[in-house]
Amino acid sequence: MKINGEHYRSVWPIGEDAFGIIDQTRLPHEFVTLTLRSADDAAHAIKSMQTRGAPLIGAVGAYGLALAVREDASDDNIQAVLEMLEETRPTAINLKWALWRMRGTLMNQPHGKRAALAWAEAAKIADEDVAMSEAIGWNGLKIIEQVAARKPGQPVNILTHCNAGWLATVDYGTALAPIYMAHDAGVKLHVWVDETRPRNQGASLTAFELGSHGVPHAIIADNAGGHYMQKGQVDLVIVGTDRVTANGDVANKIGTYLKALAAQDNGVPFYVALPSSTIDWTLDSGADIPIEERGADEMLKIAGRTTDGKVVTVEIAAPGSPAANPAFDVTPARLVTGLITERGVCPATPEGLRNLFPKS
Amino acid sequence: MKINGEHYRSVWPIGEDAFGIIDQTRLPHEFVTLTLRSADDAAHAIKSMQTRGAPLIGAVGAYGLALAVREDASDDNIQAVLEMLEETRPTAINLKWALWRMRGTLMNQPHGKRAALAWAEAAKIADEDVAMSEAIGWNGLKIIEQVAARKPGQPVNILTHCNAGWLATVDYGTALAPIYMAHDAGVKLHVWVDETRPRNQGASLTAFELGSHGVPHAIIADNAGGHYMQKGQVDLVIVGTDRVTANGDVANKIGTYLKALAAQDNGVPFYVALPSSTIDWTLDSGADIPIEERGADEMLKIAGRTTDGKVVTVEIAAPGSPAANPAFDVTPARLVTGLITERGVCPATPEGLRNLFPKS
Repeated sequence: MKINGEHYRSVWPIGEDAFGIIDQTRLPHEFVTLTLRSADDAAHAIKSMQTRGAPLIGAVGAYGLALAVREDASDDNIQAVLEMLEETRPTAINLKWALWRMRGTLMNQPHGKRAALAWAEAAKIADEDVAMSEAIGWNGLKIIEQVAARKPGQPVNILTHCNAGWLATVDYGTALAPIYMAHDAGVKLHVWVDETRPRNQGASLTAFELGSHGVPHAIIADNAGGHYMQKGQVDLVIVGTDRVTANGDVANKIGTYLKALAAQDNGVPFYVALPSSTIDWTLDSGADIPIEERGADEMLKIAGRTTDGKVVTVEIAAPGSPAANPAFDVTPARLVTGLITERGVCPATPEGLRNLFPKS
Repeated sequence: MKINGEHYRSVWPIGEDAFGIIDQTRLPHEFVTLTLRSADDAAHAIKSMQTRGAPLIGAVGAYGLALAVREDASDDNIQAVLEMLEETRPTAINLKWALWRMRGTLMNQPHGKRAALAWAEAAKIADEDVAMSEAIGWNGLKIIEQVAARKPGQPVNILTHCNAGWLATVDYGTALAPIYMAHDAGVKLHVWVDETRPRNQGASLTAFELGSHGVPHAIIADNAGGHYMQKGQVDLVIVGTDRVTANGDVANKIGTYLKALAAQDNGVPFYVALPSSTIDWTLDSGADIPIEERGADEMLKIAGRTTDGKVVTVEIAAPGSPAANPAFDVTPARLVTGLITERGVCPATPEGLRNLFPKS
């Protein structure tokens, strides 16, 4: 996607011994890119959420592992770095998927070839993610067009939670890919952007992306989506996901479950967009997904711009009060209308998933 | 309730020509009281949410009207000021109730007596609100004790949304009154405090109140309640309300509806605490309640403390993005386990309400 007229991906190689990312903790206040030179750099960037989004951290993990292989191509080092990177964020499955794919590519190869192979494989993971996002976009576009056909001349109102746009993937996005395609195809749209406390990925990143692309939108409190659904002002919900289990349960940013409940209560279709690398075939249900608990400071403090343009962090809660901060919740498959994947749209059921991905 | 050892109500008379309130927009960063000397002062305090909470703004409105009567005790002035104050916030019914009660007390009295009568009636409304909050506390305490009896030695986990504590009433609170009574009675408690975006009444006011009173609690994102219910970590939800219609529908702070949906989905009892002045017998259902739309700045900016203790307002969203800000939503009666009133607990049904309040 373009920022100030320049095309960016969310991760890019720099020569063969470094790679670049956008520091997403500085958005929307500042646009800063970072150069990562080691697996430790990658681990820090993922943990601190300088880079985030399930598909994107898969690619970042892959590049991080590739840098480690340049230093030491031994099986032991690959395994150790894989485990170190795997632990940076426990809920998203794409990271694990990408790391184990890297491992599979490298393990039976001569040590001398591993560095080049690893670099190429990381690039391939990134390119494939772009292709998957595009395919998700085309498949989701059909759903939006169907809604648009039922209300000619009126905008399709879509609600999304967190950021599953191009900043969460290598390019295009998952939940936002169909929205970009629809907008570019001339479909009249309006997006309700959940703020997404506590890290405000909606107000910071999704609003930034949609604004940059010219898609009409409004930021709303995470509390407000149910009200708009009750009032008939939401035609469709589309969100991303960090992990889908074999039965169709969906782990995504905390609060997704509440929106899915409201969608069901009001007959609003609730779609989840994902590349197949987000599917965890090894888990039967969402109850088994580890839910990351993040620090209390994310709830108690916030960064913002003062009137003179300085970015400062301020405390916003009652002094001395503790906070708890689970980062994800699980939306049961029964609340999901459909899964939008690179291969098409399927029901959130074991059969639905298996029909699209018989060999996974 | 006590702040730094001193007893406060949330509104108090100062002589007979002014009254005091706590500036709740400054909490939790600063504790500042304000002296209001006219109905215009009262209107400004209500609109700007220096004073808020459905029961409390009833009492503040009454004192404001009483000050206007000192200036001009004519029927015309009483009616004009009543209408001016009534429009400051459209959703809470207690304000309307208190103003029309004041009007009823004054209209058939000699003009010369009206100022003294008005002052006395405002004080009576405030005193009665305290008595009602106490009674709500005793009635709600029984519900908490029943849960406690089922899990001896373990804390009762209660989730609340927004602030329905002593800062939202004249004293004690509605939703928090049973919690204070239970804590004082030695029941082991833990309160999940919804942050309550966009004005953060939970993180600012409820956490401040609970912390001051020594009640164990944790601030959570509005997004997190559903997750904790799924994990069995919420025994009970208690919230306040701004208006209950004759069928038991409940208007309350935006996001309440989402928590009620999650409570139902997980079999968690969902109670609403209110004085009977919150019941709007003239409306058959919540669909008829006007929902206040507040300014976008409440979503886009936030006040907080810098590390050197200064309070500053910062912008937190993507520059240029618009925001929408409905302040309340309506929770359908079907999702409400019971209404905790000063006369007892009843089902959220027309019959349940009529049984407790046959003559209203």
